[in-house]
Amino acid sequence: MNNFNWDSSFAVDFDLTTGFSKTAETTKRHLSQMKDMYYDVAAAEEILKTEDPLVYEFYELGCPERAGDLLFGTTILYPGTVGGEYFMTKGHFHTQLATAEVYYTLDGEGYMVMENPEGDTMEVELKKGEAIYVPRRYAHRSVNTGTKPLVMYFTFAADAGHDYGTIETKGYHKMIVEKDGKPAVIDNPKWK
Amino acid sequence: MNNFNWDSSFAVDFDLTTGFSKTAETTKRHLSQMKDMYYDVAAAEEILKTEDPLVYEFYELGCPERAGDLLFGTTILYPGTVGGEYFMTKGHFHTQLATAEVYYTLDGEGYMVMENPEGDTMEVELKKGEAIYVPRRYAHRSVNTGTKPLVMYFTFAADAGHDYGTIETKGYHKMIVEKDGKPAVIDNPKWK
Repeated sequence: MNNFNWDSSFAVDFDLTTGFSKTAETTKRHLSQMKDMYYDVAAAEEILKTEDPLVYEFYELGCPERAGDLLFGTTILYPGTVGGEYFMTKGHFHTQLATAEVYYTLDGEGYMVMENPEGDTMEVELKKGEAIYVPRRYAHRSVNTGTKPLVMYFTFAADAGHDYGTIETKGYHKMIVEKDGKPAVIDNPKWK
Repeated sequence: MNNFNWDSSFAVDFDLTTGFSKTAETTKRHLSQMKDMYYDVAAAEEILKTEDPLVYEFYELGCPERAGDLLFGTTILYPGTVGGEYFMTKGHFHTQLATAEVYYTLDGEGYMVMENPEGDTMEVELKKGEAIYVPRRYAHRSVNTGTKPLVMYFTFAADAGHDYGTIETKGYHKMIVEKDGKPAVIDNPKWK
């Protein structure tokens, strides 16, 4: 368990390439915990017959949901596909909808897939050495389209909150799939 | 001038070692702009007779001071001393006092010097590959105690605001000076 005093200063090491900390512990998301979020659930179930791959892991440092505090840490998203759809994070809206988030990519490549409650969508490439801004009001999910881990350092308001519900039932309007060996942005048929 | 639409997503490159962006411009702080912040003002004036060294530079991406938005960027603080006191940033309180800030050190070494309005002080070492938390209510200044640039990626609430006034008149309670070739934390005589 990660235990820090947020009224004091403290340091946490995050390797500048792998994203891993020697002093903090990650939370892990295996495919079994999110199989219904992929379009091709049957493909996910087929994989799960023989293994339960780790899709991503991230650091939750236990910050209280307090105004003025900031959550920070890294997410390590592994390469892989499920029925042609690239490995991705669950993604979420913030409960306090109008709160932004910043991701600084330390390694790897991929996409940030975003959409607001009105259904406006954005897909921005994630590249090593680039910080990308997720504006207020946008749900966001990261997708690894490369062959090595996608490593991101993130920061957002501690009282932003997470709303997974909306996204978990129907998914995002857009999906990132492998097409002729390259990533392509396509419409999620579930929204038709 | 850096011009972004903060209601949309955008990317900014920051080199993962040097902190520099190819697409954004830095704001620069030369010694002449902050000579009175060093304890030994005479030593600063002596340096300024022959040169006006660049002490630090940082990225201001022009985010509006709006609730829910986040400021982010890098600060590059150069090595050097003024009368034995290491090169440092101006440092500031946030106008919204109870707002935190996170610094992730990309390269170099130094200290984060912090104090709250009650005069409680903290000095935490900055090391490459470590994120340090500046808690709510603490003024903060970074100090380069190494021989190469200290490079930090920072994030904080866009509506936090900056209050330089209190610090500019009297400085911090603590100073980081070179003593026998090593950094030492000492009391600032101006507070006696």
